[in-house]
Amino acid sequence: MLNIGILGCGRIGAVHAGSISRIDGARVSAVSDAIPAAAQTLAEKTGAPVRDSAALIDSAEVDAVVIGTPTDTHYGLIHAAAKAGKAIFCEKPIDMSADRIRDCMSAVAAAGVPFMTAFNRRFDPNFAHLHTRLTAGDIGAAEIVTILSRDPSPPPVSYIKSSGGIFRDMMIHDLDMARFLLGEEPVTVFAVGSALVDAEIGAAGDADTAAVTLTTASGKICQISNSRRATYGYDQRIEVHGAAGMLRAANVQEHTIEVATAAGFATAPAQHFFLERYESAYLAEMEHFVEALRTGNPPSPGIVDGLRAQVLADAATRSWASGQPVKIPLD
Amino acid sequence: MLNIGILGCGRIGAVHAGSISRIDGARVSAVSDAIPAAAQTLAEKTGAPVRDSAALIDSAEVDAVVIGTPTDTHYGLIHAAAKAGKAIFCEKPIDMSADRIRDCMSAVAAAGVPFMTAFNRRFDPNFAHLHTRLTAGDIGAAEIVTILSRDPSPPPVSYIKSSGGIFRDMMIHDLDMARFLLGEEPVTVFAVGSALVDAEIGAAGDADTAAVTLTTASGKICQISNSRRATYGYDQRIEVHGAAGMLRAANVQEHTIEVATAAGFATAPAQHFFLERYESAYLAEMEHFVEALRTGNPPSPGIVDGLRAQVLADAATRSWASGQPVKIPLD
Amino acid sequence: MLNIGILGCGRIGAVHAGSISRIDGARVSAVSDAIPAAAQTLAEKTGAPVRDSAALIDSAEVDAVVIGTPTDTHYGLIHAAAKAGKAIFCEKPIDMSADRIRDCMSAVAAAGVPFMTAFNRRFDPNFAHLHTRLTAGDIGAAEIVTILSRDPSPPPVSYIKSSGGIFRDMMIHDLDMARFLLGEEPVTVFAVGSALVDAEIGAAGDADTAAVTLTTASGKICQISNSRRATYGYDQRIEVHGAAGMLRAANVQEHTIEVATAAGFATAPAQHFFLERYESAYLAEMEHFVEALRTGNPPSPGIVDGLRAQVLADAATRSWASGQPVKIPLD
Amino acid sequence: MLNIGILGCGRIGAVHAGSISRIDGARVSAVSDAIPAAAQTLAEKTGAPVRDSAALIDSAEVDAVVIGTPTDTHYGLIHAAAKAGKAIFCEKPIDMSADRIRDCMSAVAAAGVPFMTAFNRRFDPNFAHLHTRLTAGDIGAAEIVTILSRDPSPPPVSYIKSSGGIFRDMMIHDLDMARFLLGEEPVTVFAVGSALVDAEIGAAGDADTAAVTLTTASGKICQISNSRRATYGYDQRIEVHGAAGMLRAANVQEHTIEVATAAGFATAPAQHFFLERYESAYLAEMEHFVEALRTGNPPSPGIVDGLRAQVLADAATRSWASGQPVKIPLD
Repeated sequence: MLNIGILGCGRIGAVHAGSISRIDGARVSAVSDAIPAAAQTLAEKTGAPVRDSAALIDSAEVDAVVIGTPTDTHYGLIHAAAKAGKAIFCEKPIDMSADRIRDCMSAVAAAGVPFMTAFNRRFDPNFAHLHTRLTAGDIGAAEIVTILSRDPSPPPVSYIKSSGGIFRDMMIHDLDMARFLLGEEPVTVFAVGSALVDAEIGAAGDADTAAVTLTTASGKICQISNSRRATYGYDQRIEVHGAAGMLRAANVQEHTIEVATAAGFATAPAQHFFLERYESAYLAEMEHFVEALRTGNPPSPGIVDGLRAQVLADAATRSWASGQPVKIPLD
Repeated sequence: MLNIGILGCGRIGAVHAGSISRIDGARVSAVSDAIPAAAQTLAEKTGAPVRDSAALIDSAEVDAVVIGTPTDTHYGLIHAAAKAGKAIFCEKPIDMSADRIRDCMSAVAAAGVPFMTAFNRRFDPNFAHLHTRLTAGDIGAAEIVTILSRDPSPPPVSYIKSSGGIFRDMMIHDLDMARFLLGEEPVTVFAVGSALVDAEIGAAGDADTAAVTLTTASGKICQISNSRRATYGYDQRIEVHGAAGMLRAANVQEHTIEVATAAGFATAPAQHFFLERYESAYLAEMEHFVEALRTGNPPSPGIVDGLRAQVLADAATRSWASGQPVKIPLD
Repeated sequence: MLNIGILGCGRIGAVHAGSISRIDGARVSAVSDAIPAAAQTLAEKTGAPVRDSAALIDSAEVDAVVIGTPTDTHYGLIHAAAKAGKAIFCEKPIDMSADRIRDCMSAVAAAGVPFMTAFNRRFDPNFAHLHTRLTAGDIGAAEIVTILSRDPSPPPVSYIKSSGGIFRDMMIHDLDMARFLLGEEPVTVFAVGSALVDAEIGAAGDADTAAVTLTTASGKICQISNSRRATYGYDQRIEVHGAAGMLRAANVQEHTIEVATAAGFATAPAQHFFLERYESAYLAEMEHFVEALRTGNPPSPGIVDGLRAQVLADAATRSWASGQPVKIPLD
Repeated sequence: MLNIGILGCGRIGAVHAGSISRIDGARVSAVSDAIPAAAQTLAEKTGAPVRDSAALIDSAEVDAVVIGTPTDTHYGLIHAAAKAGKAIFCEKPIDMSADRIRDCMSAVAAAGVPFMTAFNRRFDPNFAHLHTRLTAGDIGAAEIVTILSRDPSPPPVSYIKSSGGIFRDMMIHDLDMARFLLGEEPVTVFAVGSALVDAEIGAAGDADTAAVTLTTASGKICQISNSRRATYGYDQRIEVHGAAGMLRAANVQEHTIEVATAAGFATAPAQHFFLERYESAYLAEMEHFVEALRTGNPPSPGIVDGLRAQVLADAATRSWASGQPVKIPLD
């Protein structure tokens, strides 16, 4: 039985605890949150005891930790968990600073503990199937990757201000997906952005509408576009054009019903947001983490993937600010 | 150059004349209509002279005739054209009476002239492709044929009264399609019908909503349903379930544009009615007729196909009237 | 907390136990199976004790029973549970004999216990949404209901022999769906059937390919077709043509990925079979049962729905045997 | 009757002549080609006489000219036709040099003759419908335009060498479409490109895989990607993300048939190439030209649209060469 401690009992912590309850051979063995009521609620649901975070990390009843606390606490928790020899499952972003992520990498490497960065979209059954077909060679070598990603509605401007900006907060998922699908590191990034959805987002120094072009050393191209608002639901599409064909992932709609009237044929909006859209991805990523610990294989994506996505997001942010393409720094 | 005389310059005659003008090696050489103005209009468009029907049929300037006149005149025109040795392209139904169609068959056989019954749907590029894939064995032997066919809106009750009823006037196309796809003659038919669209159609003794089940000697099954009214356009779908798979023809919509809003995703209505939906079928059937005459192969569907569809429609009508399944008579 | 006893710990019993574990306010409180190992496995998974069926029914630790045992045991268990005053959730068919179902109805009515017949498809989120839109009047009055239902592959002939035949074993789900969507009782049924998939099924006196036409007093029409074999997965489609439009439920495919190659565009097969396809329907029907008991509203579909579907299946079987349409008897 | 002279009787000249033959009130009155056999073939098909180009332009039997000759001859023919007072329908690109297009603009303006640049895609019924819905405000203001455009296979390298490069030869259509949909002039362009399809195209100094990002003064964004090779047909998709929704144009497939087998569901490739895909666009653009001359309204797109697309293609080419974003020069 793998005993997992939950650090952070907010929305995403509860999602991961729910996933663990559906996985044979794993259980939630302790929970922790800075807000006592949040910890208590999850403790009742899981039957696991409440601990403070330091005690949870050091406890013999915990083999692995799930870090779902605010981003600025990740650094300390990762160091503590690595020192305590616990396997780590960490929400993205690992940290807002690439240098601090590098510090975490060193600590994790020194401790030799397994580390997984929670890029959940890689585990969406549809996207995972696309990746499987791609790596199986079904469309030959990837040449152009196109990612269209739109949130249903923007977060409050107060959130925007501490979010690190659209490239680090929202597009980072797409930048990770680009790396996943290109099979090769991007070497240049060019970014554009505007505040078309909400002028206050612009006044706060951020964009709500953005697009990026990535290129790789061998000449592959990736185009990503983001909007913070889509009236028709959570728009999540990817496609890969390859030498022998094309792979495409459509939106997942709320239901399959089609209604035909004089206006034509109508189907449902896209599933509203990430908790619905990626419900099975959250389960699958935790299954992967548990299975990796069971077999001793390193979980993937690892801490280096968390670093590289952050480096890409930083570079995109600089490109947007300068209006110039930016070379992606090596690790 | 194949010289074709047009008998009947109404809507369908004009369609056939337009098709002929797009076919190399064929031309409209004469036109005829009981209404002088109709003939005159088509004469101007085609550059062909107006003739009375007897003169047109006997003229040396005519190799083949297209019969698009009212149904009750077909019998006489077919006999005249056969006697004159002209190839015949005849609109469906050949006649309202199966016995009179048998007379026409005898006259055509005695004269040895080519005869084509204008079941245009067999020539729709989509349905034709489905048939090609089916006969190529792509889904194995056909087992269940399903045909959904709905008109956008009912004709006037005055038309209904002289139409022969829904099975002979509307479903006859689907009955021919069933024969085309089953690859085997139906041996029993069971029909139901109601007047749900317009009570006056019911008062006139006809149904506007109808369904038929056909079976063949080897146990294949075909289900057809018709409605005289579909708010979303001209609904024309067929599918064949076979031993190794399924073939399906979707509706053709007015355009490919999808609009996404908070209500979901919306696409266009089905193309409105037969002139739009089957525009390329009308061209293809005339190309087939011209090509058959050029090569000397018999055109298909032939006069026997016109007869058998009529026999099926008669049997369906009797089944509906009696509430009992009816055995399909042999020729 | 609602305490539910599971009678029958086979595949479907395990599905219902899994659903109950995901519903707040309900738990599995006891399990029973004629095969001790089956009961033991489910007991371990749920933490509930194993009981023999009589003890389980009479136990104070049980408020409601889920009957998932072989069909021929339903009669006795329903009578016992009704006598013990327990709410009953019963798998379909309630019994192979309509008369015996009527006996069960009397016992349930006399005891005044809630009873739900497990027609799970009514709870599929897609079909449920279709029904909601239909009853909201979005397409006006229903006129033609079309149900296409095909299993991926036939059961063993040994199963066929005791199944009651395709109309009672397979089409009964579609007959219930027809009643659900027509909003009116069918008054006549006409059935055809063949053994096209497996000649041994024919030799066993059953069909593997079948079609039915239902009519209602007001003239609505329903066409159903079944095949025991579809190479492309579990084919489950329904559509309703109404006065103001059409509602349609498409198949649920294994994933959303489209691959484009020189052969064209390809998507996934339909989800393979009922456990995958109706996973959320199984959960939703149990949620409905629990909610009905909590609020005191009668669960639906009730025992009368189980009876009427069986009566329809019996009538379809007689129609197939006789080749004649059959009037549906009243209750 | 509008008399139209065809300058250039190659493939595209024949397409335009065919369109004219289907338009009431217009006819081909003369044809001209440097290759006598090409002119002769079209003369036979249209019944119009062969003329040399100077004679055709000056002839009283010609009201308007269609210029479908090699690009380097456009400049002279436009000047001659303008001087002769003829209306001009000119294939794109008007010229490879923006400065020479400006000369043509002056000549056309001085002569006051109507001029239409043949950006046929604006007249595709699907794209035209998308534009109509967009300008009607159905999705609010455009924010992100995405254009995916891929040819089925690359032209010979010999053609590539004199083509002006992928941005001027292939992407120019997409650049015009971007202007059409953005409703605002692009102010910056950033381009990337690679030779992934054919190394010889790279050796010839061109790219076969390319992507562009455009921005407008108000912050709208457009992403375009091109490949010279798509195994699944001629891939032509556009979408516009707006404040209130999204509009999307799917590919047009060869037929509507879906075949289901154990491998899943398969549909046809995209229509192979531009003559099939844009057949109705070619007809519609000529109808627009004829109608514009009839009513006296200026045809659109005009010569300035030809210029601006060329200026954009030039700027994209410079951006690709330099690796830097480029500001779009004003006229």
